[in-house]
Amino acid sequence: MEFIEELRSLKEQVKFEAKFDVGNDFQKVVIAGMGGSGIVGRIFQELYSDKPVYLVNDYNIPNFVGRDTLFIAVSYSGNTEETLSATRSAIKKRARVVAITSGGELAQIVDEKAIVPKGLQPRSGLGYMLMPIINTLAPQKRSTIEKTYMLLDRMDKDNTEMRAMAERINKSKGIPVIYGYFPFGAVAYRWKTQFNENAKVLAHSSSFPELNHNETMALSETYRKGGVFVIAFANTNDSRIAKRILWTQRLTKSRFELVKPKGTSTFERLFYLIHYGDYVSHHLSLLRKVDPTDISLIEQLKRSVSK
Amino acid sequence: MEFIEELRSLKEQVKFEAKFDVGNDFQKVVIAGMGGSGIVGRIFQELYSDKPVYLVNDYNIPNFVGRDTLFIAVSYSGNTEETLSATRSAIKKRARVVAITSGGELAQIVDEKAIVPKGLQPRSGLGYMLMPIINTLAPQKRSTIEKTYMLLDRMDKDNTEMRAMAERINKSKGIPVIYGYFPFGAVAYRWKTQFNENAKVLAHSSSFPELNHNETMALSETYRKGGVFVIAFANTNDSRIAKRILWTQRLTKSRFELVKPKGTSTFERLFYLIHYGDYVSHHLSLLRKVDPTDISLIEQLKRSVSK
Repeated sequence: MEFIEELRSLKEQVKFEAKFDVGNDFQKVVIAGMGGSGIVGRIFQELYSDKPVYLVNDYNIPNFVGRDTLFIAVSYSGNTEETLSATRSAIKKRARVVAITSGGELAQIVDEKAIVPKGLQPRSGLGYMLMPIINTLAPQKRSTIEKTYMLLDRMDKDNTEMRAMAERINKSKGIPVIYGYFPFGAVAYRWKTQFNENAKVLAHSSSFPELNHNETMALSETYRKGGVFVIAFANTNDSRIAKRILWTQRLTKSRFELVKPKGTSTFERLFYLIHYGDYVSHHLSLLRKVDPTDISLIEQLKRSVSK
Repeated sequence: MEFIEELRSLKEQVKFEAKFDVGNDFQKVVIAGMGGSGIVGRIFQELYSDKPVYLVNDYNIPNFVGRDTLFIAVSYSGNTEETLSATRSAIKKRARVVAITSGGELAQIVDEKAIVPKGLQPRSGLGYMLMPIINTLAPQKRSTIEKTYMLLDRMDKDNTEMRAMAERINKSKGIPVIYGYFPFGAVAYRWKTQFNENAKVLAHSSSFPELNHNETMALSETYRKGGVFVIAFANTNDSRIAKRILWTQRLTKSRFELVKPKGTSTFERLFYLIHYGDYVSHHLSLLRKVDPTDISLIEQLKRSVSK
């Protein structure tokens, strides 16, 4: 499948109906995953707070994992070394373990699983991996899903705006810095990772209001020297955050490129922002003449480390 | 107090004996704080996993906060707008609320508190703010505290190594990128914030193994162009992480500056790494001829936003 086709499949992914029958008999949710699969937990942690969601992006699991824990292992390939290690530990500690994967070893060691379609880059399967968790713990109305489908479809048909942003980034010598805000802090991180993997450029993300407590001090000088290309998610409903975006620009004498999520629900806005970043990083890869699907270094690293 | 004196006070801070009498009758720990106070929660989350530790770096608290939640509010000044907002919500929801502060409004609204000494930059009071949580939930042996005191004292007496690193950073045109690993991922973030606030330079942090799943793809080109100055914490006991550090350098053709924490316990190594970064950022501020205590932009921003 061509990379652009992978991107276009996101709208179908939001309709993925897999879910888990886990009841409500757990106190904590642990989501384990790395990279393009790990982002799923990060995004969900900001969407859901009825129970604590704890992220594992490493080999080890926290001590508290036990029978009262819903442990969700996410690995597109099913063969991610860190996630397999964490999942084995969770099984030993008798957590309620479920998995989201296209197969691999993870599908062998976990009974209850959502099997996602094969054949994509893991990071292009974000919708498939996120939806089973949303369907289980924070289900959306059918109309919201439909509206999101339509929104993403329009972006697939016309993404000149994203290509124009990619052109401006490519002309700039600054590294892309993406500023998010709750509940889209993880989406800013997603943009960063997409810039890394698709366009092979360094990028940095952080979130309002935390960034106002430290990195704002470095911004004016770096901006003046052209060291950064700042993208900020706008259209927040929180007037305190809107003020922060405005004042950070004024006081640091910087200009941010604002991305204004469309849609009325958090779900629509979430996928709008994700898709927007996917397209910007894709167009940037074309402008830079690099192959967005080439992640050979990551693959070599996996092989070298597991030797 | 001179900034260098603030740094030198860290060894006294690890002896700070304040603690809370909270028993064991809670299921979740929420730690709220921003910037130099917020880092406390990030660090503690990696040290303790008997119960889920959830971080709040924003105005709002998660839905799950209730009577079974230990809510720890950390604000050096006691007047941080986001932390006050989150703490008021936690009080309303009848969480067990305690506070760590030098005074301010936070000291007025919370009954049970650890009062830390005034007169420091908030970020220089990290030890004072961290110890009450450690003393309460993960107490250390007296001998460990003593060894840490001695270790920090030696660093105060001789920090030529840290000055040399600051000189190399200053000569380089790259932005400092700090790679941590569990349980020192938050310390890498601490370095980043210290570079921002003390030396007024942009910086970026991330952690093994997560960084091997995305930003490694951007490293070789950025490194070759001199765009980054990479510092990695070394001396991990985990051979899988040690391999990753080695192979990431080899495959991306990059050279990392390794910081090897001294000490045998996690506690000693934690404070060694914190103090090392404090000195590097301090020396970098001198080389760049900027005032490490100047955070006027952050203060202006707070005033503008709260208008």
